[in-house]
Amino acid sequence: MRFSTSSGALALGALLLAGPALAQDSPAAHTVTSPGDIHTVTFTLRDGAPFYRVDRLGAPLILDSRLGLVLKDGPSMDADFTVADSSTRSFDETWTTVWGESDSIRNNYNELRVQLRSDTQPPRTLDIVFRAFDDGVGLRYEVPEQEGLGAFEIMDELTEFAMTGDHMAWWIGAYQDNRYEYLTNHTPVSEFETAITPLTMETDDGVAIAIHEAALLNYSSMTLRSTGNATLEADLIPWSDGVRVKTAAPMVTPWRTIQASDGPGGLIESDLVLNLNEPNKIEDTSWIEPGKYVGIWWEMHLGTSSWSIGETHGATTENTKRYIDFAAEHGFSGVLVEGWNKGWEQGWVGTGDHFSFTDPYPDFDLEYLAKYAVEKGTRLIGHHETGGGIENYERQMADAYALYNDLGVRAVKTGYVAFGPNLQRTGADGQKHGEWHHGQWMVEHYQRSVEEAAKHQVMVNIHEPIKDTGIRRTWPNLMTREGARGQEYNAWNEEGSNPPDHTVIVPFTRMLGGPFDYTPGIVELLLPARPNNRIQATLARELAHYVTIYSPLQMAADLPENYEAHPEPFAFIKAVPADWAETRVLHAEIGDYLTMVRKDRDSEDWYLGSTTDEHGRLLKAPLAFLTPGVTYTAQIYRDSADADWESNPYGFIVEEKTVTSADVLDLRLAPGGGQAIRFTPAE
Amino acid sequence: MRFSTSSGALALGALLLAGPALAQDSPAAHTVTSPGDIHTVTFTLRDGAPFYRVDRLGAPLILDSRLGLVLKDGPSMDADFTVADSSTRSFDETWTTVWGESDSIRNNYNELRVQLRSDTQPPRTLDIVFRAFDDGVGLRYEVPEQEGLGAFEIMDELTEFAMTGDHMAWWIGAYQDNRYEYLTNHTPVSEFETAITPLTMETDDGVAIAIHEAALLNYSSMTLRSTGNATLEADLIPWSDGVRVKTAAPMVTPWRTIQASDGPGGLIESDLVLNLNEPNKIEDTSWIEPGKYVGIWWEMHLGTSSWSIGETHGATTENTKRYIDFAAEHGFSGVLVEGWNKGWEQGWVGTGDHFSFTDPYPDFDLEYLAKYAVEKGTRLIGHHETGGGIENYERQMADAYALYNDLGVRAVKTGYVAFGPNLQRTGADGQKHGEWHHGQWMVEHYQRSVEEAAKHQVMVNIHEPIKDTGIRRTWPNLMTREGARGQEYNAWNEEGSNPPDHTVIVPFTRMLGGPFDYTPGIVELLLPARPNNRIQATLARELAHYVTIYSPLQMAADLPENYEAHPEPFAFIKAVPADWAETRVLHAEIGDYLTMVRKDRDSEDWYLGSTTDEHGRLLKAPLAFLTPGVTYTAQIYRDSADADWESNPYGFIVEEKTVTSADVLDLRLAPGGGQAIRFTPAE
Repeated sequence: MRFSTSSGALALGALLLAGPALAQDSPAAHTVTSPGDIHTVTFTLRDGAPFYRVDRLGAPLILDSRLGLVLKDGPSMDADFTVADSSTRSFDETWTTVWGESDSIRNNYNELRVQLRSDTQPPRTLDIVFRAFDDGVGLRYEVPEQEGLGAFEIMDELTEFAMTGDHMAWWIGAYQDNRYEYLTNHTPVSEFETAITPLTMETDDGVAIAIHEAALLNYSSMTLRSTGNATLEADLIPWSDGVRVKTAAPMVTPWRTIQASDGPGGLIESDLVLNLNEPNKIEDTSWIEPGKYVGIWWEMHLGTSSWSIGETHGATTENTKRYIDFAAEHGFSGVLVEGWNKGWEQGWVGTGDHFSFTDPYPDFDLEYLAKYAVEKGTRLIGHHETGGGIENYERQMADAYALYNDLGVRAVKTGYVAFGPNLQRTGADGQKHGEWHHGQWMVEHYQRSVEEAAKHQVMVNIHEPIKDTGIRRTWPNLMTREGARGQEYNAWNEEGSNPPDHTVIVPFTRMLGGPFDYTPGIVELLLPARPNNRIQATLARELAHYVTIYSPLQMAADLPENYEAHPEPFAFIKAVPADWAETRVLHAEIGDYLTMVRKDRDSEDWYLGSTTDEHGRLLKAPLAFLTPGVTYTAQIYRDSADADWESNPYGFIVEEKTVTSADVLDLRLAPGGGQAIRFTPAE
Repeated sequence: MRFSTSSGALALGALLLAGPALAQDSPAAHTVTSPGDIHTVTFTLRDGAPFYRVDRLGAPLILDSRLGLVLKDGPSMDADFTVADSSTRSFDETWTTVWGESDSIRNNYNELRVQLRSDTQPPRTLDIVFRAFDDGVGLRYEVPEQEGLGAFEIMDELTEFAMTGDHMAWWIGAYQDNRYEYLTNHTPVSEFETAITPLTMETDDGVAIAIHEAALLNYSSMTLRSTGNATLEADLIPWSDGVRVKTAAPMVTPWRTIQASDGPGGLIESDLVLNLNEPNKIEDTSWIEPGKYVGIWWEMHLGTSSWSIGETHGATTENTKRYIDFAAEHGFSGVLVEGWNKGWEQGWVGTGDHFSFTDPYPDFDLEYLAKYAVEKGTRLIGHHETGGGIENYERQMADAYALYNDLGVRAVKTGYVAFGPNLQRTGADGQKHGEWHHGQWMVEHYQRSVEEAAKHQVMVNIHEPIKDTGIRRTWPNLMTREGARGQEYNAWNEEGSNPPDHTVIVPFTRMLGGPFDYTPGIVELLLPARPNNRIQATLARELAHYVTIYSPLQMAADLPENYEAHPEPFAFIKAVPADWAETRVLHAEIGDYLTMVRKDRDSEDWYLGSTTDEHGRLLKAPLAFLTPGVTYTAQIYRDSADADWESNPYGFIVEEKTVTSADVLDLRLAPGGGQAIRFTPAE
């Protein structure tokens, strides 16, 4: 489109001037194009400094952008280069997921590897690798073993993303106290200073773009700094001493990822981040099982019970038995219990050095309950709130996971509640140093935790985590994580609850990384225990979240008594799977509305979830995803005509229709509403 | 979505304040809600002045907006009213089209009629009627027979459309010389002074809105004036004496229409404008046949032949025979011949009083050619260029249509090339008065022409027309019209050709009224006869226009020799129908891209057309529209990987695939490109 009142001819002329330079224009250009001719990466050296650009379908997506690493000691890897060699290769395989949004994923790219050598003293050797996919581009640095370079420190990574205009961005600022748990802002790129990734943008021309990273291992996490002129610069979270990355050759950086799609739905459907991770390293995955869980959790957020031992203690043997009985009766595979272990009574937010991860409180009979749960056909889900006491946790981690394994506990929820940069690390000087959740020290801690848990056959659900960069492909026991404002904010009056648009933004931003333990499914929306607070949703919307917000460990977050009082919506929550064979996006407008459909991995059932912001919607959903020729019963959980998150959140209708793949359903969503549908072959 | 960096809670608070007032709030409110509870119209009197508002799914779509008619003489109909009576009724029928985008259309609304009576002297009686559909709202004034009101003149219509914000609009200014033939501007509503309708807007919240009118008869056409504060006011094109409408009681005004959809594709799928027209008045419709035509036309635009008699005259007997033979060989039902009649030699643009519509030039044997065409299985299409000489045309119209009927000519293309306001009308004073194309005088002329043509069983294709307001439902011999920048601009260097986004804007704006005789299908894109000009399209895009730009008389606009030189694209042009059983929109971003599918009315074939602006695209098309269980052969006409409207417009590939309704096709569109597909059941 043209965004002006000027004549089309003039506007078009300007676009032509900005058109893609042909590779031949520059003698030093090396290019690679994606298998379907969608994206082309062009690498060039300018006076010895490395640059890349990305074109999409014949027009620029990323303009010429700087590359390079600045080292603390000796020559940097950002200039004085010549191309020693370059090579391309093609790759095409379809791999099978252990669990996830789809059962198999095609990984198809063309790769360009440019080997650079500097004329510095000592000379530096650096490979830059580009993978061109039809859904985007990945690039990373590889520092080979070389003379004069053992351990080294990176002071800056110069990677730029020069956007073609001041695109509208959906962003959360980096370097904030409260980890990633903020509402998302929506402004042009020029109006923020820093942003966490995934950073999602939309151009005036209808292209959705997300910048993120894949396989964040042994490195600091990347944030983006806006230069004000539509260029984004990598800004790595530093250690407390200002160094960005402490590493040694040979090493590889995480992949920097650029995903692009005509319309934002394609970003959700893209598997690029997973494809840029290494294949599964866990041989026996039989113990890794997605599932749904309930737990002793929401009652603490409502303030009716406490984590710490005392009169209102939630994690008592008796209360836990009640949850186990409820889970067993209704088919939940897990029962989370928070506040079961010693240490809470000494405080916890950012002060977690005193927690024990093996000693239960005296009123919580861990062994008995773990066994009782297994006998009833469910399992306890463990809980390790570190309170930011990383070194304390590292000391106990192996024993704690081993204990769970012994007890038949297959999953643990970990927590890192502390404000940044305030995670206490003991330095070589013996002093404590405050680190960020998202710097290299913590990246490595989170990874150690996952790998240690895998040794003990324990699945992990991380709260206050490092962002998701697709490591679940390599370590499929890394199930899910928080890393965004979850349901719990809706119970905290002082923080303000999540507005209706929150869950039609997060799937296009935070969730491009991976699953989100949002903990949906509150059916007692008005929170009698919190009279000044409420869920800003209709009942049907809370159900739709089970489809639009994926988590392989998916919570039914409300209290057992509330589900018993609302059997109709609870029927959907009991039915909906946490593991899918296929996922498609039907309607997608960031911050406005989202409709997704997913096929159950274990049956022929399909599920649809549709949610909107504070505006009602009428969306037409063609049922093309259903198997042609099969008649389905659609169990529809929808807003009533007079439903409204504010004035009538319980306006809710359950009905059945008979449908086929040739039908088009009208989805009428109330303000702050949604719709959930289960499609079952009728026979 | 929220469009700010402020906290969600604050932004939400502001929205709540703007929430819909409940009908009960005002004792004088009368309301009606659409059958699916999507749109609610609320009528109120404020100090005797009529107002309406429209809510969509619980939120305002149109804020309280003024209604009323200002009369020249005596009391106006804009104030001093009380509600004498009000009533509602429901209507639901499915009607069959004679031809069009679909074979049957559901017309389902709830109606509110408010009868107003003023305490003026004499008292005025006015009905205001609202129809609430799920895809929008129509409203009109009905002036009943009443004491003290015979013939009367309307000086102003006060209808307002108070938008809820300064929405981005796609607009063309009213009161311009060159009728509707301009490129479309894209700015907030506040940045234009006047705009023609359909006026299409998009809110920040993802809602697409179009304001237009239906059944424009015996009235002046409505344009919209922007007040600068997001309110649009009806601005009727005046007669040369300043009066807007000359009428008499009883009378009804055209319907003012407001269409709304979550996303712009729904505007294209809406049948609201047709539903607000009266049913078909032509009993025997056997002679009304959609079809495709070639013609002696493009060669004049290329400058290689002339309309006027002389050495390069196009409309010679010999040349016409050549076109007839070509049409017969390739199955076209019509052959348009322009420049066949006497008068062109005296000039024509705005000076058309000398045209004869019955006397052919001596080198054009009308009778012989008409008969020759019928013998070969095709028909001549007549041509009446009035050059703005309306009274001259009115004098000859009946004879001219009768002549065509005698000769077996079933269709005529009429033309009104003149600049506004310069159509010469002889007043009661015997003087000439310059009128607009779009004022009441011409509205009535165009209608007389259509009705007169119907008497003689002649179909009409109007160029330089009044805008389309759906009268084709009532008079289905009104086939198609221009009323926008057509293909011809691409041959006129001095005017500038149509940029690639033009045909991904027009379907969302001008074409919400109805069919557009764009005259697609130029395959010799580089116009050797016009070295400074070209078509800004790839070959595949020109084919896709046959699906995205509907006309029941659809031209294959290029020269016979050019089609013979390009048999592959020509195969699609020969196959594609001009009459459809069903139409759906798959991808829709105004000014960016559009994918539509349509089912042939006479076979089981489906056709897909997808076009983009100057940006390449990768769009995923689920083939849900195909009949489940049937295997189809997809004949795909697509851009090659290196195609580009500018650097490689002929980059074109034809290929076949076997597909079913369960498949999802990747549509890769080049910059300025497109894709056309024919799906045929394979057996």
